[in-house]
Amino acid sequence: MKIVIIGGVAGGMSAATRLRRLRESADIVVLERGDHVSFANCGLPYYVGGVIPKRESLLLQTPESLAARFRLDVRVRHEVVALDTERRTVTARELDSGREYTEPYDELVLSTGAAAVVPPLPGAERALVLRDVADVDRLVEAAADARSAVVVGAGFIGVEMTENLVRKGISTTVVERGAQVLAPLDVEMAAPVADEMRDRGIRLELGAELTRIDGDTVTLSDGSVVPADLVVMAIGVRPESALARAAGLAIGPSGGILVDDRLRTSAPHVYAVGDVVEKKDAVAGESTLVPLANAANRQGRLVADVIAGLPVSDPPAQGTAIVGVFDLTAAMTGWSEKRLRAAGRPFRAIHTHPLDHAGYYPGAVAMSVKLLVDPETDAILGAQAVGGEGVDKRIDVLATAMAGGIPASRLMDLELAYAPQFGSAKDPVNMLGYIADNLRTGAVGTVQWHELADAIATGAHLVDVRSPEEFAAGSIPGARNIPLDELRARASEIPAGPVLVFCQVGQRGNSATRLLTQLGRDAVNLDGGYQTWRTAAPILTTRLIKPLFT
Amino acid sequence: MKIVIIGGVAGGMSAATRLRRLRESADIVVLERGDHVSFANCGLPYYVGGVIPKRESLLLQTPESLAARFRLDVRVRHEVVALDTERRTVTARELDSGREYTEPYDELVLSTGAAAVVPPLPGAERALVLRDVADVDRLVEAAADARSAVVVGAGFIGVEMTENLVRKGISTTVVERGAQVLAPLDVEMAAPVADEMRDRGIRLELGAELTRIDGDTVTLSDGSVVPADLVVMAIGVRPESALARAAGLAIGPSGGILVDDRLRTSAPHVYAVGDVVEKKDAVAGESTLVPLANAANRQGRLVADVIAGLPVSDPPAQGTAIVGVFDLTAAMTGWSEKRLRAAGRPFRAIHTHPLDHAGYYPGAVAMSVKLLVDPETDAILGAQAVGGEGVDKRIDVLATAMAGGIPASRLMDLELAYAPQFGSAKDPVNMLGYIADNLRTGAVGTVQWHELADAIATGAHLVDVRSPEEFAAGSIPGARNIPLDELRARASEIPAGPVLVFCQVGQRGNSATRLLTQLGRDAVNLDGGYQTWRTAAPILTTRLIKPLFT
Repeated sequence: MKIVIIGGVAGGMSAATRLRRLRESADIVVLERGDHVSFANCGLPYYVGGVIPKRESLLLQTPESLAARFRLDVRVRHEVVALDTERRTVTARELDSGREYTEPYDELVLSTGAAAVVPPLPGAERALVLRDVADVDRLVEAAADARSAVVVGAGFIGVEMTENLVRKGISTTVVERGAQVLAPLDVEMAAPVADEMRDRGIRLELGAELTRIDGDTVTLSDGSVVPADLVVMAIGVRPESALARAAGLAIGPSGGILVDDRLRTSAPHVYAVGDVVEKKDAVAGESTLVPLANAANRQGRLVADVIAGLPVSDPPAQGTAIVGVFDLTAAMTGWSEKRLRAAGRPFRAIHTHPLDHAGYYPGAVAMSVKLLVDPETDAILGAQAVGGEGVDKRIDVLATAMAGGIPASRLMDLELAYAPQFGSAKDPVNMLGYIADNLRTGAVGTVQWHELADAIATGAHLVDVRSPEEFAAGSIPGARNIPLDELRARASEIPAGPVLVFCQVGQRGNSATRLLTQLGRDAVNLDGGYQTWRTAAPILTTRLIKPLFT
Repeated sequence: MKIVIIGGVAGGMSAATRLRRLRESADIVVLERGDHVSFANCGLPYYVGGVIPKRESLLLQTPESLAARFRLDVRVRHEVVALDTERRTVTARELDSGREYTEPYDELVLSTGAAAVVPPLPGAERALVLRDVADVDRLVEAAADARSAVVVGAGFIGVEMTENLVRKGISTTVVERGAQVLAPLDVEMAAPVADEMRDRGIRLELGAELTRIDGDTVTLSDGSVVPADLVVMAIGVRPESALARAAGLAIGPSGGILVDDRLRTSAPHVYAVGDVVEKKDAVAGESTLVPLANAANRQGRLVADVIAGLPVSDPPAQGTAIVGVFDLTAAMTGWSEKRLRAAGRPFRAIHTHPLDHAGYYPGAVAMSVKLLVDPETDAILGAQAVGGEGVDKRIDVLATAMAGGIPASRLMDLELAYAPQFGSAKDPVNMLGYIADNLRTGAVGTVQWHELADAIATGAHLVDVRSPEEFAAGSIPGARNIPLDELRARASEIPAGPVLVFCQVGQRGNSATRLLTQLGRDAVNLDGGYQTWRTAAPILTTRLIKPLFT
């Protein structure tokens, strides 16, 4: 059996090595257009910033090491230019010599990845991207002399690039067409990341686009000119599906190769994995792009099993992702609120701001966590978290709970490892479960930060149940202060009509809401409390955000 | 409705506050024998060590704060001395005055906790324990002058106490009857913790018992005398079920109060929660003690829901637990191998030694992870991990996967948050899934560290597939070195017969085993590689451990 694999990074190389472990006798050829295989693509920004000091750390394998260990025929700088699925051959071009040759296959795996999108702007040829080792070499060279940089796109890679340019002492501006950084997150969850970036001296130009790139500046859509010795394009990636398309393979709605749950394309004996394929979404089952290294690795191993005849299938994708931004971490799994809204799908949102570990143990820091729940089934639809220590843990636990079909309200039952330096007796994840359970059973109703204005407009009385000191330090306009501990005695001070209660993070508000409800009042709690509101409310005035919530 | 709660710490106070949120009109009386309610019991050792500098940090609530916020009638230093389930009354004694009085109830919650076990040794009156604030005050006072200490018991609390005494500069000896520290863990997983303790200058006396306590020494079972200005008993806890027993309530096989899945005792209108009850085990459904603060909190909230008539039930207990030991963390969930062996339950064990995050990103440290799998159903039976950063995360993910019924081999599908500072493209949890899948499908067979001697005795050839440098630095006696990259060419050097392959952690061994198997050899891989063997094998010679594995 002869297997040809096109693309020798995450998905392709996982497929090749697993295939060797399953089929010692197979001929396995890996054709890689670039100079390197199996490099650490997620480490590239950190090499630019000097966090990873040595270039060789990025190069995990070489064609020689792969030949020795796995008897793989790995050919770098060989680009596949044509695919004939009838004759089962590919045409490869040796880039150094220009020689073209035909390589037959019994089974073919496409792992061609995705390319950075570079819009056709004047001066676009000066824009750098960051997908492979050649890119990083160009970037490191350009960064050596640069005093200013513009990063276009504030997605995960744009944010990582920005952090690392700032580490090199380069004055950096981020230009993002959307109204927020980290578009996969919801706006109120991304806001702390934007604040952190601004605190580090980064200029954020949200709702802005580039119109041209000149010698050492760029021009934005509002006409302003920004210094830019260096321009990095990080507005997104596009599946490298041209070869597949030219060969007549079915392409999905997002431009990726269509595969079934055994990673088979529309052509017999042709499989595809990684960033180039459309994956089945875990929430809605729709076809979606999830360009993540871990997903590519997983699919690479899986396609080897499929080719070897094992009874496996590719599970749907949640799209769990994480990014470090200086001292902050932001992470998510599943769907965001905005995605649910855009799809017209009903949901409940929960915000909370727990400490990463017990407050009485030194060093506890707050994080913000958001959970999205299906109101019919109690299923977890998605989760987001932003903060310091422990954000990665909570998103991993929530991603696992989602994968395991644990209902949102049962998160309260999870037995998570507790000692005061690691968590709380009621872990942030358990707290989400308690809140979800209160919502599910109707024990407490909540109002979202963006619903507050409407609630007040319809006559709700706003009651801040925090301490007088907290109230004095800043509250929501129009609120009266009745501290929770006095509420039982002073409830009659609240005029007749609906009551909207809030505290700092939602927990005292929950007790207050239960108390008022039991006193016969029509009371609801502000979800996530003053903290969510304070983070999010200013954003509501942004022209690009407002339509989402009205 | 009048509800009386006996015990005002984790379970009792969670019950009281949740009851108030559900039943504003109820009379809720909390009777607490000690001086304090709702204190941070898991923080006590760290206050001794000065990590938590202020005593008031431990006191989360007071009777006054609970009265103000939740209208609770909290009475400290009131001990309940009798319970009449017929008349629905308790008899309480006011400890300061000696006055006794009868308190009627409609519903009663027993949250009396567990007491530290102190064996009846000569001099036992000098032994201190650590369960409440009064205990910690005594310990802090005694530690102020102490230069030497003996901690009896190397369980979770004993180890935490030891660490904190060492922090105070006190020369500390740990006396443990068993052959290992942290008995809930398996011996090879606990061994690094013992090493860490010895590295910190702690004297470990394993397989030893105290025979007497004198003025400033203790005497061990072998006759040796150890300096001990301070003696701490941490050999375990016993449910404080005497009151319940005297009242005729059903008591379980381990001495805890028997409750059903709605936390009802055998007497109508009497409930029990927390350390005093026997919980239903998640693996085998048997009755078991799980004295953990987070479980007590959860049950406290749950019993309030039960009393309020909500349709809830108490899920079985996995017993997830964690402990920090200087720079190490050890954690577990579910059953250990020794518990499975003792129960005669079939299992597969998997050992691996992954890095906490991508090796190419600075600061990666190795951890050891063990997974126990049901060979019939592929269910996760338990997991253990020891290492630095990221141990808590992996155990929480595994505990969640176990709770969600995710089969061991499907751990490979979990989409965990990956960026190089947080994990690996193939996370340690995914790797466990890959290994479990290889075992499940029979792709690779493994041998455990304690089975190695038998395998060699029956004629297996031992092949170390690591590099010559690694081999030269130390290998398993009798092994021949054929580096993995040369194995394909040199396989014929291995004499006929079964082959036992190993590498450093198991991964190269896996590839080597697949290669040899496909070359027609009868090959198996040493699970966890040289690293598990090197950690564990010396222990096999210990008289107390050997019987477990023979």
